[in-house]
Amino acid sequence: MKIKEFQDYLKEKNIDLALFFNNERIKDTSFSYFTQIPPSANVNAVLIIPNSKAPYLLVSILELNIAKKISKVKEIRKLNSLKEIKGKTIGLNYNSITLNRLKSIKKEIKTKFVDVSEKVSELRAIKTEEEIILLKKSCEISSLIMRKAINFCSSSKTEIEVKEFIENEIKKLNLEPSFTPIVASGKNSANPHHISENKKLKGFTIIDLGVKCKNYCSDTTRTIYIGRPSKKEIKDYNKVLKIQEESIRSKEVKASKLYLKAKKVLGKNFIHSLGHGIGIEIHERPDLNEISKEKLTNNMVYTIEPGIYDKYGIRIEDIVLNKKILTNIDKELMIKR
Amino acid sequence: MKIKEFQDYLKEKNIDLALFFNNERIKDTSFSYFTQIPPSANVNAVLIIPNSKAPYLLVSILELNIAKKISKVKEIRKLNSLKEIKGKTIGLNYNSITLNRLKSIKKEIKTKFVDVSEKVSELRAIKTEEEIILLKKSCEISSLIMRKAINFCSSSKTEIEVKEFIENEIKKLNLEPSFTPIVASGKNSANPHHISENKKLKGFTIIDLGVKCKNYCSDTTRTIYIGRPSKKEIKDYNKVLKIQEESIRSKEVKASKLYLKAKKVLGKNFIHSLGHGIGIEIHERPDLNEISKEKLTNNMVYTIEPGIYDKYGIRIEDIVLNKKILTNIDKELMIKR
Repeated sequence: MKIKEFQDYLKEKNIDLALFFNNERIKDTSFSYFTQIPPSANVNAVLIIPNSKAPYLLVSILELNIAKKISKVKEIRKLNSLKEIKGKTIGLNYNSITLNRLKSIKKEIKTKFVDVSEKVSELRAIKTEEEIILLKKSCEISSLIMRKAINFCSSSKTEIEVKEFIENEIKKLNLEPSFTPIVASGKNSANPHHISENKKLKGFTIIDLGVKCKNYCSDTTRTIYIGRPSKKEIKDYNKVLKIQEESIRSKEVKASKLYLKAKKVLGKNFIHSLGHGIGIEIHERPDLNEISKEKLTNNMVYTIEPGIYDKYGIRIEDIVLNKKILTNIDKELMIKR
Repeated sequence: MKIKEFQDYLKEKNIDLALFFNNERIKDTSFSYFTQIPPSANVNAVLIIPNSKAPYLLVSILELNIAKKISKVKEIRKLNSLKEIKGKTIGLNYNSITLNRLKSIKKEIKTKFVDVSEKVSELRAIKTEEEIILLKKSCEISSLIMRKAINFCSSSKTEIEVKEFIENEIKKLNLEPSFTPIVASGKNSANPHHISENKKLKGFTIIDLGVKCKNYCSDTTRTIYIGRPSKKEIKDYNKVLKIQEESIRSKEVKASKLYLKAKKVLGKNFIHSLGHGIGIEIHERPDLNEISKEKLTNNMVYTIEPGIYDKYGIRIEDIVLNKKILTNIDKELMIKR
């Protein structure tokens, strides 16, 4: 993905080449972005992107065969040492290089290092056509599973049962979840990152799930009601729904301003960001929060997920591309017994 | 675990306090070591260990409830900013702090930072009694599942079927694997980190699996034979087995020398280390390879896993504590049809 654009940047900045290190401890998702080797493959390798020649991979002998099978970067050699890598100025992804890693790199390569993380995350924020196809597919599958999960819910089911139902549906498709599904009911729904319990569903029930489709994540949330909602509960739900839909359609391009509009409506019980970019990582640029400097532009793919958390929680989350929703699940309050 | 010992070190080195950062991108297993919050919980938090007072946690509001439920460090507050943290000299784990993370920490805390990674990994290499109980339990479960998996194997089963059998057995016990199980048969066994294929078992078949038991990993490998092994194959198997058993019992304390003894016997087809420490991480100190500076001492827990890889692969791996094997699975060549 966008190797050419990245090389243009390296040339412009007089950076001879850039290195992306991936290992089981520190997985560099930008390594995965350029090579399409999934983080879960646990490949120990270095991706070298020179500013004009073809990129290549140095891979640990233990994963050489796997890398040859799955990498999009096709020139692959055995990783022995970094000493063969030469350049007056070398770019590194400072988002994923630890202090001790830099120390050990410097022992092998005596040169000047510069940070290229800003540029890579900027390139990744605007999706290519190929990525958009994968993200649409990923959203389609998540929507299907969400509809099934909602159908499965009832007052006789527990949080854990619904969570496991979702995990099994994902497994049946031979896919991986992009995170552990969240099923949070009643009081537990007030806890945005609740871990499911052996507790029967009652009242507002938040279901938050996503799958990975060829490395590309999806992420969607619905809140349904088990039992009879009070007028206040219905009003709260519709308040979240209204600002969610307005945020999606809004012509506001500044991410921070879009967040602040939602914050103004939802008040102190809105305790997280309005959304986040999504791609190879479940959370990537652009951030939609108060301190964000991002502008929302064409071909960015991000979530819009306002929520309120007090005695109960309500969150509604869709994935958005060019002001259109990629996830496809009903949004009126679904009431079940 | 060993917070007191770590605080003694901080005092001795005139370090006022140490910080351990954990977030979904960079998971610091030393954060998990001290708090016992599993890496999979995706908790965004900072652990503060002052050199004499009680340690405490600052946790993102989104995971505050989870942290309160599962953390062994009981003083927990909401994470707002790092500005409240004061100290003339502050320790950081340079194994898991990225260059950009350090930059952002330095914006909030203006002080001197030093690396404490060496000390933490050294403390973690010698297991406490509590850790040994968990590691023994983890090894016991892995052994049970390995015996079942071997029983399940036959010439009519595929690599993927055996891999999924193992994953299901782990799931039935409500546990997580410590890595994706490896099932590699025939030619594929020559690839140490093979990803299972839809291919029937034939010839040497390597099974490598592990589970996590309350955060503590196990890791064991057996090689069985499907069909009729040749004399050369039986000889090769017994060569690996002999050096495995000798390495376990050896009185050699230098890890590098122990590796070199095995290398001398197995030759160029032995392409990885002789073993690795194991605990909260699947690979931690001590390393048993050529460049290791480790001494093997009492209460270290590590794998011994010699192997050869040519037209086929053979690997036998057990977990060892004080020269005794914690995993419990037969080792004579098991031949199945």
